[in-house]
Amino acid sequence: MKFTLKTKGHYHFIDITSQVERAVENSQIKEGVVLVFVRGSTAAVTTMEFEQGLIEDIKGALEKIAPEAGNYKHHLKWGDKNGAAHIKSSLIGTDLSIPIEEGKLGLGTWQQIVLIDFDEKEREREIIVKIIKE
Amino acid sequence: MKFTLKTKGHYHFIDITSQVERAVENSQIKEGVVLVFVRGSTAAVTTMEFEQGLIEDIKGALEKIAPEAGNYKHHLKWGDKNGAAHIKSSLIGTDLSIPIEEGKLGLGTWQQIVLIDFDEKEREREIIVKIIKE
Amino acid sequence: MKFTLKTKGHYHFIDITSQVERAVENSQIKEGVVLVFVRGSTAAVTTMEFEQGLIEDIKGALEKIAPEAGNYKHHLKWGDKNGAAHIKSSLIGTDLSIPIEEGKLGLGTWQQIVLIDFDEKEREREIIVKIIKE
Repeated sequence: MKFTLKTKGHYHFIDITSQVERAVENSQIKEGVVLVFVRGSTAAVTTMEFEQGLIEDIKGALEKIAPEAGNYKHHLKWGDKNGAAHIKSSLIGTDLSIPIEEGKLGLGTWQQIVLIDFDEKEREREIIVKIIKE
Repeated sequence: MKFTLKTKGHYHFIDITSQVERAVENSQIKEGVVLVFVRGSTAAVTTMEFEQGLIEDIKGALEKIAPEAGNYKHHLKWGDKNGAAHIKSSLIGTDLSIPIEEGKLGLGTWQQIVLIDFDEKEREREIIVKIIKE
Repeated sequence: MKFTLKTKGHYHFIDITSQVERAVENSQIKEGVVLVFVRGSTAAVTTMEFEQGLIEDIKGALEKIAPEAGNYKHHLKWGDKNGAAHIKSSLIGTDLSIPIEEGKLGLGTWQQIVLIDFDEKEREREIIVKIIKE
């Protein structure tokens, strides 16, 4: 199963928990693993408590590692300005695996599945969901 | 299968390799994948050589990214002080997948499975283990 | 399935997409998940656009977090000098899961599977590939 999302880039955080939950319900698999994967090299998938303060905090920490306004050698390749986006995608990762228990996602109460788009422009993102039976 | 651990927070590193090994042995699956997942948004699971010097080194590197004593916007949400813990959980990740080969974990000799609890207080952590046949 | 690679360390980036693609083709599995895992605690597996400028950019960002030339407590354990390599391996991770769709890897056009060897010396690296049917 897969779905697409319109993203704005520049640290666009989107809670995709409900889409993954629905996919798990539809599969009728009670025990297993779900893989959530974003195609591309300037976005990432992770878990977090999805709330605005923490979004700002994560952005602040990542700006220290790879600031959007920095000069990157990657910019010489295509003439775009998304070197920082690539670095953060590789660091956080584009894949996330979550256990399925009794037909439900094995997440914590304050733990959501979140897509982060780091790119410099609007994109249409494809998220692939694969569900494996234990 | 799942198990719980009492954690102290503040960079509490716990080697959970033996619990995962036992789960793999009990499953009698010879070739496959095991997913290790910590429920929650202030802890992480990764691999490392589990030794005290390296624990200090990883702590040092992570303090540069998200110092425990920092001021975080997330603190305004609930009045707690674990913003740094959330950031590190999202960055390192709460999931880890390891191959199973001939009934054994496909780890290196100096590679252990480690839970890191970043929270500011004691917790009871739930670790979920899912084993999938190739 | 597994394969080995000679690595030079010191941020040696190797594109391993073709080896994983071949393994997926040979499996004849059309829908599922492939796990790519590097054995060891001083290397990592991630995805990125594999091009020289970005390799330099990722190296630059990681040097800020854990510089190769730094002093690490881990060096007291074995007398070697690869503390920074261990930190980066734990941070980026040794595992990567990718969806298989219609018999192909579900990667983006500019998204390759990359092994990064951070160690201080030449190694023979073992990469384990496990393929699971949906």
